[in-house]
Formats: sequence, structure tokens, C-alpha cells
Amino acid sequence: MSGRGMDEEERILDDESVEKMLESKEVPRWQKQLSVRAFVVSFVLSILFSFIVTKLNLTTGIVPSLNVSAGLLGFFFVKTWTKFLEKSGFLMHPFTRQENTVIQTCVVASAGVAFSGGFGSYLFGMSEVVAKQSTTAHNPQNIKNPAISWMIGFLFLTSFVGLFSVLPLRKIMIIDFKLTYPSGTATAHLINSFHTSQGAKKAKKQVRFLGKFFSFSFLWGFFQWFFTATDTCGFGNFPTFGLKAYQNKFYFDFSATYVGVGMICPYIISVSLLLGAVLSWGIMWPLIEQRKGDWYSAQLPSSSLNGLQGYRIFIAIAMILGDGLYNFVKVLGRTLFGLYHQLRDKNIGPILEGGGIRKNSPLALTSANLSYDDQRRTQLFLKDQIPTWVAIAGYITIAAISSATIPLIFHQLKWYYIVVIYIFAPALAFCNAYGCGLTNWSMASTYGKLAIFVIGAWAGAAHGGVLAGLAACGVMMNIVSTASDLTQDFKTGYLTLASPRSMFVSQIIGTAMGCVISPCVFWLFYKAFHDLGLHTSPYPAPYALMYRNIAVLGVEGVSSLPKHCLTLCYVFFIVALAANGVRDAVGPKWGRFIPIPMAMALPFYLGGYFGIDMCVGSLILFIWETIDKAKADAFAPAVASGLICGDGLWTLPSSLLGLAGVKPPICMKFLSRKDNARVDHFLAS
Amino acid sequence: MSGRGMDEEERILDDESVEKMLESKEVPRWQKQLSVRAFVVSFVLSILFSFIVTKLNLTTGIVPSLNVSAGLLGFFFVKTWTKFLEKSGFLMHPFTRQENTVIQTCVVASAGVAFSGGFGSYLFGMSEVVAKQSTTAHNPQNIKNPAISWMIGFLFLTSFVGLFSVLPLRKIMIIDFKLTYPSGTATAHLINSFHTSQGAKKAKKQVRFLGKFFSFSFLWGFFQWFFTATDTCGFGNFPTFGLKAYQNKFYFDFSATYVGVGMICPYIISVSLLLGAVLSWGIMWPLIEQRKGDWYSAQLPSSSLNGLQGYRIFIAIAMILGDGLYNFVKVLGRTLFGLYHQLRDKNIGPILEGGGIRKNSPLALTSANLSYDDQRRTQLFLKDQIPTWVAIAGYITIAAISSATIPLIFHQLKWYYIVVIYIFAPALAFCNAYGCGLTNWSMASTYGKLAIFVIGAWAGAAHGGVLAGLAACGVMMNIVSTASDLTQDFKTGYLTLASPRSMFVSQIIGTAMGCVISPCVFWLFYKAFHDLGLHTSPYPAPYALMYRNIAVLGVEGVSSLPKHCLTLCYVFFIVALAANGVRDAVGPKWGRFIPIPMAMALPFYLGGYFGIDMCVGSLILFIWETIDKAKADAFAPAVASGLICGDGLWTLPSSLLGLAGVKPPICMKFLSRKDNARVDHFLAS
Repeated sequence: MSGRGMDEEERILDDESVEKMLESKEVPRWQKQLSVRAFVVSFVLSILFSFIVTKLNLTTGIVPSLNVSAGLLGFFFVKTWTKFLEKSGFLMHPFTRQENTVIQTCVVASAGVAFSGGFGSYLFGMSEVVAKQSTTAHNPQNIKNPAISWMIGFLFLTSFVGLFSVLPLRKIMIIDFKLTYPSGTATAHLINSFHTSQGAKKAKKQVRFLGKFFSFSFLWGFFQWFFTATDTCGFGNFPTFGLKAYQNKFYFDFSATYVGVGMICPYIISVSLLLGAVLSWGIMWPLIEQRKGDWYSAQLPSSSLNGLQGYRIFIAIAMILGDGLYNFVKVLGRTLFGLYHQLRDKNIGPILEGGGIRKNSPLALTSANLSYDDQRRTQLFLKDQIPTWVAIAGYITIAAISSATIPLIFHQLKWYYIVVIYIFAPALAFCNAYGCGLTNWSMASTYGKLAIFVIGAWAGAAHGGVLAGLAACGVMMNIVSTASDLTQDFKTGYLTLASPRSMFVSQIIGTAMGCVISPCVFWLFYKAFHDLGLHTSPYPAPYALMYRNIAVLGVEGVSSLPKHCLTLCYVFFIVALAANGVRDAVGPKWGRFIPIPMAMALPFYLGGYFGIDMCVGSLILFIWETIDKAKADAFAPAVASGLICGDGLWTLPSSLLGLAGVKPPICMKFLSRKDNARVDHFLAS
Repeated sequence: MSGRGMDEEERILDDESVEKMLESKEVPRWQKQLSVRAFVVSFVLSILFSFIVTKLNLTTGIVPSLNVSAGLLGFFFVKTWTKFLEKSGFLMHPFTRQENTVIQTCVVASAGVAFSGGFGSYLFGMSEVVAKQSTTAHNPQNIKNPAISWMIGFLFLTSFVGLFSVLPLRKIMIIDFKLTYPSGTATAHLINSFHTSQGAKKAKKQVRFLGKFFSFSFLWGFFQWFFTATDTCGFGNFPTFGLKAYQNKFYFDFSATYVGVGMICPYIISVSLLLGAVLSWGIMWPLIEQRKGDWYSAQLPSSSLNGLQGYRIFIAIAMILGDGLYNFVKVLGRTLFGLYHQLRDKNIGPILEGGGIRKNSPLALTSANLSYDDQRRTQLFLKDQIPTWVAIAGYITIAAISSATIPLIFHQLKWYYIVVIYIFAPALAFCNAYGCGLTNWSMASTYGKLAIFVIGAWAGAAHGGVLAGLAACGVMMNIVSTASDLTQDFKTGYLTLASPRSMFVSQIIGTAMGCVISPCVFWLFYKAFHDLGLHTSPYPAPYALMYRNIAVLGVEGVSSLPKHCLTLCYVFFIVALAANGVRDAVGPKWGRFIPIPMAMALPFYLGGYFGIDMCVGSLILFIWETIDKAKADAFAPAVASGLICGDGLWTLPSSLLGLAGVKPPICMKFLSRKDNARVDHFLAS
């Protein structure tokens, strides 16, 4: 995998060095990168994106990565503004790509709060409306209705700690592991291409490629929209391989985003996803389903965590934890080993850059391979360091404040629960940032669910365990979600030569904006739509009820898991450890053919559809490379970025249309021959 | 238009001359082109295609052009056979492309009888089963049930006359007018590419292009099939521009065939089709529909010829007749003028090759432009002439025999009706061959309907007018259908250097095969499915009832047309004449921007969908030409042929699946938001 990962990097960075092309453009000092106009634009975009995210939260609960849209819109806003100033002769500073990245980072941080704030999940799951729809725990002990004051307070207490946990990860993930972070890379590509004024012919052609596929992807999203009258309609539910396969979540959903992601990710990721999907939805779940009535009650709905859904979620979690912890322990061990050598020899070089770590890790890169672009980027990335003690001190301080004050908001959540979360959170944040770098998929909600389960069970139903669990979810999610989002941003910053310091400041400002803006936006929705959260409402907030149900299940303890689920969890936890062990043992030559457990686990509960999209993308890239390697290497990242960006930007007008109450007029429906005959008969009568 | 027409020709023929590449391969004498193995293969394929056509006739009644499949399968059959012989050392003669064309021609002639024999339309419309479903004319006078004996007799009497009417058209359409005949050209391209053993690099690349798009188009057809549980499902009914536009037949139906046709046809054809669709379904029909209850009874179903459908069909017929007759009269006039000059000067060159005709006609080509390919093809095409007196004598002889004997089968069809049909038929055959050359669409059934109407009205209901009309339809359709199909074949022959004489013989043999095979195949269906012709049957033969209804309407005379329909017919007849007149008056420079009435009329009753497909094809070609003219010129015809051929071949397995009773499993349905809600509710209950 590391081999491929490197290829990917080099492909994006090496050909006709972007940095050589942009060399004439001076990189401003980090303080200069933080302009007032950048934050004005960020503020406007933050409001916009908070609306979008909140709306998505409350309708389907699925929120795509908005990095790309943020980068793009930031550019357009500031560019229009500077062009206007330039014409009127008032332009003080030219618009740099670093400034562009700062805006992007700020908006992502702010919009991230709208997601991890849990307005469509754990936070709203505490409300009376949702509680009444659940099976049990209707007592006031387990209910807390939304109010703008405590929501803002809670967000301020939980949102900043993540920023500090990200700081040490930054270098490990980006410089040492060279993870791809597809969205972040795509955004950086976009920003770089915007700021290439009179670059080489190839760069221009890349921009043209990007523009073409951007437009295509945007228009394709637009076209798809018309046929999506409800969630079960349209191309997103196209039973490409038949209805039976569709029921098992095997279908190509025509998502330009994930085809693009497949073109950026290493092949092994797409293959692992497909493998995971086949293993789970193709083999395991059908087998377990045959035990229905024996292993779990046959009366349960398919979404019940006591039934099949329980196996899906908990086995996936076990595998993700196995992979994440293996890598965490490995890196920690080697860090300590390096540290030990450094302390002993005093002159072995910076931590984590020692040969001992690099040579053996399948993810490592030997310095000899560094291209001009890589060298320059690494140099600037490491220039404005933030000392590790700042990160550690910041984390501990905020953790301490939070532990002391959050129980004032939720008296069910004892201070020692919070301390425990803050002890384990960095490990999970590491796992999430690592997984996201590989697959572009943030598992924040999975870790959140884990927190619900563990803390809920610990507190117990009698002591408001449901509410404690949901609140714990909030604390956990804010950390792990920030970890993946902001490492993604740092990747963008790395590729656009933005200073880590300016990005850190921008993230702090963005988070602060988000902590105020998003509760206000949610409050507007909450007041405007009185049936919010009911399943008959246009804003049913499906995940709010789902999270609450997980909490309800949690307080009953591990024993409430379906039969053999825990055993299977152990098995897959060990499989994940073993896969990593084998990869490290056989070395990079054969190790790159070993599937990644983290990627395999994703489809376990999501299904294979996005893995199929990515395989299509990988296949396109593979064929393209076979036909014309040079051309594919030069333009595939531009094509992929175009596909991701176009589809990403379409979420904006589509959400605005949704907010304006404009609904798609047509449903493209897929019926079996039998159902179709019934429907035709029904429609004719 | 002529300018484009020429470009098209040259594009296909000129680049790295196909004929130079194939020069080493000797063109066999015409007698040699007619091998026994060719007719054995033709016989097998004829049976296969007769099954396909009959099945299509009895299910939807829409039969696509099968030229391509015939050429392709002929190649594969003989090639496999010759390879086998070659290996065993028994091969006497190599397989030539002329032989390939002979097979193709024979199969098309034979399968053509299965269509024009009217087993799904006029002939089956005479039966009692269909008659009972009609409004009136249930008396024995107007009924004749199928019987294998009289069907074979009738076909032998009517099918051969068309062959002789085609002979004089051949040269006019192909050498003088240089019409494209998209299917014929595509087939020729395919056959040529198969027989290019070690040609130039470009030719190889063309074959690769063709192969790639052939596979794509075939697989696309295959993929589409799964979602077409009923006729209203699937990509063929995709409301690309919304449901309202779909109701007015404006949609892109994802037909690879017609996208390919759009890439081969001159731009003005696609534009004319679109213009006609906008004029009719966009403006006229909605306006006329507002007069519902005034101009025609509001109680009529939309398919009734007394209502809106009457306007559609009769206005289209008027326009087609106007265009066709203008060109017929023009060519006739110039032929006589050339003949007069020839007789006077004795040395002006062959008829229709004189400068007088060429220089003024927008469709003509000046000799100076002839490429090597064109010269060689024209030379061979004109070498084995069939004298005009043979054509005229043959036509008159068969017409006389038919007129005398057909009334023995249908005593309602008086001999003088038949004589009248045979007098007018050549003019209509000309119109049809001409229109098909432009648009690839045979209007045979339209002319057949005209015959039903005229002869039916003439005979009157009391004297078995309905049956007389249907029988007249048969006589007429056999001539005009043969005219378009076989001129299409001659185009293939022209492009593959097949001798016109060998093709003529092949057509005669093929027609004879068809006259025996297709009634037998129909007889099998008739005996196997006892509910044949009932609308509840899997073989409802929808057109049989439609044709009978036209006949029923016909016997009531022109007065039964809806209000103002006749006036509108006059108007559009004159518009068609005027458009042609203006084009001839302004000269080719501006004349090429004047739409073709023949093409405009087609969507009048079919709707705009296939015009939109063709516009998409034209647009792709246009963009391709803008980006890289040289590459587009070289490869667009191969791409187009691939698209047409692949989709064409898919009809074979799809029909076989249908015959085997394998039905598509899924219906891709398009419902309005409102209907979707109702359906979801219905399915949930």
C-alpha cells in the first residue's frame, strides 16, 4: 500500500513541479495569511454551510465532505472582491492561495461544529420529542430539551479540545505516513490550480480537465436531482446489478464524488472496500440472517441493534478498533523507541524522523525519494512549528475545564466519565484521522456510538444513563470529528504551503464561529418547524432517534447484544490485528496486497455501494494508465478533483432548493416485474 | 445539405482510401459472388431473422433495421466455416466482402418480407380475432382468416414487383444523389473493416474504435434490457426533460442506434427533425388539443384517427408527399430533359450524368470531386448494369400477373384497384427510398396506410372496403418497403464493390425464401399461441387492430377526418413544395440551411425523441470536429457504425430471450412526485 500511496503523491506533485511554477509567488508570513477579509468571507460562508449541514442533518443525516465547496466558494468570494478592489485601485494585498486555504480551513472548522454538534443526532436525541418515540427511558432524568444557552456553552466546552489533539497528529499523518486525504488533496489541487496564473501548458490543460469534469459532475448532480422525489428514488438507488444485489447494498449509485475518490485513493483501498462488502453483505449477513429466531428475535425490525444491525455495527467497530489500535500502538512504540534513542544519543534527529521508524514501516517514505515539491512543502510545513508542549498543555487544560463544568450542564454525566473519555479520545482521534486519510470517510459517529454504549452502560438506566451516554457521545464526537476534518485541512495546507500556525489560528476562529452560528441555525429550524423530529415531518432527523435507541440499548449492557455477536467482534478484532501484523512481517513488496482492515470494516454496515463507486474510479484509472501512463499520471488527479468538487458544490444549490421547499418533480423508481404489474394496475384504476 | 452530404461521403471514403488498401484483393466476377455457401448461410439466418421480425411484429410492431446484424452474422458464420475448411485444407475460395454483402442482401430481403408481409399489421388485421375488437365491419365480407396457402400465394404475387421498381432508383439515389443511407453505410463500413486484413495503421485503429463502440453499444443494450419489464419502463422512456416534455414525446431515449445515426447523417437532418418536433408537438398539437370538443369529439381516445392522431398522421403524410413528389417531379423533369438532349446530341453521356442535372441540383456532386474510392466504386457499380428495359418489362409483367390473380384471393380487391396502385407505386417507392436515404427511416407503413384509406374509401364498406383496403395496403407496402430496404442494400453493395447483378439475384432468392419462410413462422406463432391478437396476450399484435381501424375509418371517406385537418394537410403539402422550391432557388450556399420537409414530417406523429437522439449524435460530432477535425473525420464514422451495429445486434439476443419467455426482472419507472407518494402508500399497504 505504501508503494501506491507514494505513487499517488508523486503523481499529484511531481510532474512539472507545481511549486516551481508558483515559485515566483512569495509565500506570505503566517500572520499575513490571516487577513480580515478572509475571516469576513469565512463568516458569511460559515453561515451558509451551517444551514446546509443542519438541513442535511435533519433530513437524512448524511453529510458529505464540504472541504471542496468551501475552498471553491472562498476563492470566488475573495477573487470577486479583490478584482473589484483592483479595478477601483484599492487593492492592498494580492489574494494568495495560503489565504484561500485559511478561509477553507475556517469554514470547514465552523461547519464541522454544525455536524459534530449533534443537532441531528445525539444532542437532539435528548429531547422529549425523540424520547417519546423510543421504547423506554421517558423519565425526566433521561430528557433534556434544546435551549440555545446550554447548547452554546456545551459546544464551547467540547469543541476546542479536538484542535489540540490534532496538532501532534498533523506531522505523523501528512509528512510521515503520507496519507492521501482525498478531499483535502482535491481541494488543494483546486486551490493551486486557481492560483496558477501563467503556468506551464500542462497546468493549463490540467485546469481545463478539472473545469470540464467539474462542470460535468455538477451538471450530473443537477440532472440526478430531478429524479429524486424521495430518498428511495433516483440514480442513488439504481439497482445496477439487480434488485437482489440492491437489497444487499451492492449497486453502483452513480456518485461522481466516490468515483473521483476511487481515482485518488490507492487501489488497495478500493479493493479492500469491495472485499469487505462481499465478505459482510455477500456472505456473513445472509448466513447470520438464516439464524434469525435463534441468534436474535425474528420479530425485530432490520434496523434494531438487537438484531442483524447489531452484528453489522459492532463487528465493524471491532475491526476498526483493531486496525486503529494496532497502528496507534505501533507508532507509539516506535515514538517511544525513537525518543529513547534520542535521549540516549542526543543527536539522532527529530522524533519520528529517525531511520528506525521509517525503514520498517510500510507507510514510511525514504528521504531520498523527496521531490522538489515535497521538499519545499515539508520545509514550510515544518517551519512554523507549534511546540508539542503547547498541544499537550492545551489539551490537558481544556480537558480539565470541561470535566469540571460539563457536569453542570448534564448532571447525569459525572466528571470521571469525562476524564475517562479524554484519556482514550486521543487514541481514537488518531484512528479516525488515519482512517480518513486512507478512505476519505470520517468514522466520528462510530466512535460517538461507542461512547454512548460504554458510558451509558457504566452510568446505568436508573442514573440517567441514556442522557449520560448521549452527552458522552458529544464529547467524544467533537474530538474525533475534529481530528479527521482538520488533518484533512492540514493536508490542504501542506499542499498549498499554508503555515500550520495560520491554519491553527484559523481553526480556532472557525470553531468559535461554529459554536455560536450552528446552535442559532438549529434554533431557527427548531422554532420554524414545530413537527421537527417526528417521522411525518419534512425534517424527521432520523439519526436523533437512532442515537437515542443506541443509548437505550447501551444502558442494558453488553449482554443485550445479539447471540455470538461479542465472539464475532473478538474474531474480527484479532483478524484486524493479524492483517496488520502480516503486512508488517512480509514487507512492502507483498504487504501492499494485504487488504486494509479499516477499509474492509466500512462496508460492514454501510454496504458495498460506495466501494463499488470507488472501484469504478480505480478501474478507470487503471485502464487509463494501461493505455497512456504519462497522460493518466498528469491528468487523473485533475479529473478526480473535478468529479469530487462538482458533486460537492452541487450539495449547496440542492440544499438551498430544499430549504426553499422546491422538491424534485420526478421519482425514478425501480420495481420488480411483479410489483410493477400491481402498480400499473393500481395507477390505471 | 448537399455540401454536408458530400463531406459525409468523403469522410467515410477518402481518408487513406479503403479501396487502395483493399486493392490487392481481387473483386470476383458477379457470378462468383453468388456462392452456394452464401445461400446456405443466408437461409439459416433468414429463418432466425424471420423469427425475430415476426416476434417484434406481434409484440410491439416496431421493427428496427436489421441490415447490420445480417452483415455481421453473415461474416461470422462464413468466416468460421472458411476457417474450419482452411484448417482442414478444403477451402476452395477465400471469403470476399462481396460474398458477405450478398449474404447480407439476401437475409435483408428475406426478413423484409416478414415485415412487409403484414403478419403484425394488415394481413393479420383481416382476421376474425382482430375484427371482433374493432367498432364495425364484422361481416364475413370484411374478414379473412390466416391460412398458410393463400398467404404464401399472396406474398409471391406482391413481393417481387418491388425488386424491379428499385432497379432504376439505385443509380439515382446512390451515384447521383449520394444519399447517406446510414444503416447501409454502417454495414458496409463493418464489412469493409472485417475484410481489411493487414491495412494501414489508421484502418486498424478504425476497427478498434468500431469494436470498442460496438461492444459498448451492445452492452448498453444488454444493460438497458434488465430495466424494461414493460414497454413503458426503462431508459427508452426516460423523461430526460421532465414529465411534461415526455408526454409530448420530447425526451432523450438513450438509443445508441439513433445517436450513431445522428453522427452519420448531415446536420440539417437532425436539425429538421428537431424543428419538426418543436413545430408539431411543441406548438401545433397543443393548440389543436385546445380545440378538443370543437374540432373533434372530446370523447375520442388519443389514439383515434378521428381525433388528434388524425391530424398527426395526415399532416405528416401530406408533408412527406409534398417533399417526395417535388423531388420526383424534379428528377423526372430533368431525366426527360437529359433524355431529350441525349437523343438530340447523341453524345452527351449517359442519362442523369449530364452536367445539366448535376450543376443545379442541391443533391448533386460534380465529377471533379470524385475521390479514388468513389471512382472505383462508381466504375464497378455501373459495370454490371441491368438494362432499364428489364426493370420496366419485369415490373409490367409482374404487375399484370398480380392484377389478374390477386382478386382470386381477395375478391373484394378489384383488378383495377391493383392497376391503380401499380401506377402510383413507383412514385411512392421513389419517395420512400429517398427519405430513407436521408433519415434511415422507412415510411413504408405510412404509404400502406394511405393505400388502405384510398382504396378502402373507393370500394366502400358495403363491398368489403375494409378488406380491400387492407389487401391494397399489402400490395403497396411490399413495393415501397422493398424500395427503401434494397436501396439501402445497394448502398452497402456500392461501398463494398459488390456487383449490382449479383445483388439483384441475391435479392430475388432472398425474397423467394422470405415468401415461404415468414408465413410458416407466423403460422407457428398462430398455432402456438391461441390468444394471439388479443390485448391480454403476450403477443397482442397492436398494429393489426390499428390497421383495421384505419381501414374502417377509410371506408367512411375523407369527410370522416377531423375538422380543418384537410385544410392543414393542403397547407403543409404546399409548405413542403415551397421549402424545396426555395432551396433550389437560393442555391446550395444558403439552401443547405433550409430544413428538409421529409425529415420535419417524421416527428409529426412519432414525436421528437429519436430526433433528440440524432441531435445528440450531431452535437457530439460537431464538438469532436471543433476539437480535432482530423481525428473526427477519421473515426466518427467508425464510432457511429459501432453504436448502430452494437445496438442492432442486441435485438437478436433480446428477441431470443423474449421467445424463450425470459422477461426483464426490473421496471425503471418514472412517476410524478404525487403519483410516487400514492404508489409508495399502495406498496406499503
